[in-house]
Amino acid sequence: MILSIAHATGEYSIFIGENILSDHKQLCSFIKGTQVFIVTDKNVASHYLSKITAALSTFQRDTITLPSGESVKTLQTFEAIIDACIAMQHHRDTTLIALGGGVIGDITGFAAACYQRGVSWIYIPTTLLAQVDASIGGKTAVNHGGLKNFIGAFYPPSAVFIDTETLITLPDREFRAGIAEIIKAALITDALFFEWLEKNMSLLLLRDQKILRVAIQKSCEIKGSIVMQDEKEKNQRMILNLGHTFAHALETTLGFATWLHGEAVAYGICVAATLSCQLGLLSISERNRIHHCLRQHNLIQSLPSTISLIDLTRAMQSDKKVKSNRTQLILLSAIGNAVITDQVSTDMIMAAWQEFSTLG
Amino acid sequence: MILSIAHATGEYSIFIGENILSDHKQLCSFIKGTQVFIVTDKNVASHYLSKITAALSTFQRDTITLPSGESVKTLQTFEAIIDACIAMQHHRDTTLIALGGGVIGDITGFAAACYQRGVSWIYIPTTLLAQVDASIGGKTAVNHGGLKNFIGAFYPPSAVFIDTETLITLPDREFRAGIAEIIKAALITDALFFEWLEKNMSLLLLRDQKILRVAIQKSCEIKGSIVMQDEKEKNQRMILNLGHTFAHALETTLGFATWLHGEAVAYGICVAATLSCQLGLLSISERNRIHHCLRQHNLIQSLPSTISLIDLTRAMQSDKKVKSNRTQLILLSAIGNAVITDQVSTDMIMAAWQEFSTLG
Repeated sequence: MILSIAHATGEYSIFIGENILSDHKQLCSFIKGTQVFIVTDKNVASHYLSKITAALSTFQRDTITLPSGESVKTLQTFEAIIDACIAMQHHRDTTLIALGGGVIGDITGFAAACYQRGVSWIYIPTTLLAQVDASIGGKTAVNHGGLKNFIGAFYPPSAVFIDTETLITLPDREFRAGIAEIIKAALITDALFFEWLEKNMSLLLLRDQKILRVAIQKSCEIKGSIVMQDEKEKNQRMILNLGHTFAHALETTLGFATWLHGEAVAYGICVAATLSCQLGLLSISERNRIHHCLRQHNLIQSLPSTISLIDLTRAMQSDKKVKSNRTQLILLSAIGNAVITDQVSTDMIMAAWQEFSTLG
Repeated sequence: MILSIAHATGEYSIFIGENILSDHKQLCSFIKGTQVFIVTDKNVASHYLSKITAALSTFQRDTITLPSGESVKTLQTFEAIIDACIAMQHHRDTTLIALGGGVIGDITGFAAACYQRGVSWIYIPTTLLAQVDASIGGKTAVNHGGLKNFIGAFYPPSAVFIDTETLITLPDREFRAGIAEIIKAALITDALFFEWLEKNMSLLLLRDQKILRVAIQKSCEIKGSIVMQDEKEKNQRMILNLGHTFAHALETTLGFATWLHGEAVAYGICVAATLSCQLGLLSISERNRIHHCLRQHNLIQSLPSTISLIDLTRAMQSDKKVKSNRTQLILLSAIGNAVITDQVSTDMIMAAWQEFSTLG
């Protein structure tokens, strides 16, 4: 199936299906010039790089294979990609291809945004997290100064290919981390989808291709419709950040390589639900359903005992969502209903970390 | 007077006049948050920084003062600006202010484009070149790998303030370098404006405020109307690059610090006119008028004897305007009429360098 995402200066298509990468023609139809530059990582390259390069045999193909993991998402790697494009004489009509997870998408998209003031790029997300999240919305970035996504751009790809078969080779930990963003999509807008997830979570975790396709498509639709209303995250788009301000604090404090982004988001969703309940916004029963859904399937883990809740709370102050010195938070007033607020005190945030980390 | 420039996602105003920086209210009305971050260079800071910071006394003001010159336009300086914004805890609703010439505008605009995926910026161009050129069109960039503007973004400011009084303190060499872009604007679209420039060049060089205002306004109007038709330089906008592919080759080969950008453009315009004439596009008499206008007022200088015309010709191959391995060139079919071509051989380009550098 094909989803169409409109943005400020055009639109692009997201192709979702089993084994869609075998259709070379469709992929090639999005390449306008004579050159492609593929950015991938070691893990993904071993499974899919030869398939992609074979599909692109009529183009000048160059490749950079990066180490795996969040620690590669730096200005230095960005510079390495640019330098390689220069060395291989890629022109303004080249196409960058991101083959990998969210890290590869973020850094490739940012390099495409800046190389010669912007060239085309195509995204082939190969992790569940990237398929349901990074593939929509045009956010690209690198981390900087220990801060998450502090240098970047809004720069949508010209097409996205989500091949659900690539999930078969995904390590279990990474697959589970992707579930958090699907649950988040349901929690912020769609109570029925959350119910469906509660019922089908076991099959989803078994990577049933049909259930997977439904879950990915539904998540993409939800994100797409929010992003189309508010591309530059001035307002409504912020609800997509449910759990993320907490998650970024976890990633910053634990170090980016300790938990996967999706694991931090899963934990962040739970703390956000706890806080929503403490503030009287969310019912105890709905909070419990949320916590149960994530705990039951082991989608969250315990905080290391060495971590300081004060450090976590402080780390939230330097999040990008801080406006005029007030932390913007996304909370829930019900399953399926998100609210944006900057009225939560540091003490209340601290209390939520406290309650969830000790009582759960 | 006020010019309005529309772009893909909005529009912005260019205020042109004498001593307009004294109107604090107008400047402040474009600052939405509580923070401003001023980027300037040593020369400009000594003349105007205190005036600007005084105007912004109600905001959190932070400043970075860079060395002067093109050599500062690097990814390293970009990183230094980002790091300073992080250190001073600038949030997503901060406003960057570029106070200086084209280099300051390019690097500040690029930092604004990328900091937290894009914050607002205001441009106060203080050189003639920046006022008539960099202030319009939203191009931002840094140089990289010895290549001009290879990393950047299209990211328009939220307002531009052109105070013609700032030109009074501009060193003579820099002032003269700015004239090239005014002549270029006339050559590509407006034969009558070129005639007016031929008549008024002496007064313009004496920095007569009235003549200056007319020349700046007219140049801004020309560039604005071209940019509004083709923001991302897919087609018609390329005519603004008359002389620039030659100029970039000069800057790359001589080193960025040797000639000023406007000096390289002046020379490039002359070579482009020579080539246009060699190809039978432009009449000899019009070519002569162009050469005469630039020579008469000492707006161009001689090439160093050590420079190799082969190196210059080769340097044109790595220009950003190369598409699918063909160099895109802007030539003239008449004064006031530019043409875009990729049909010029390397030998013909070489012959033009040869003729202009030896015979002039």
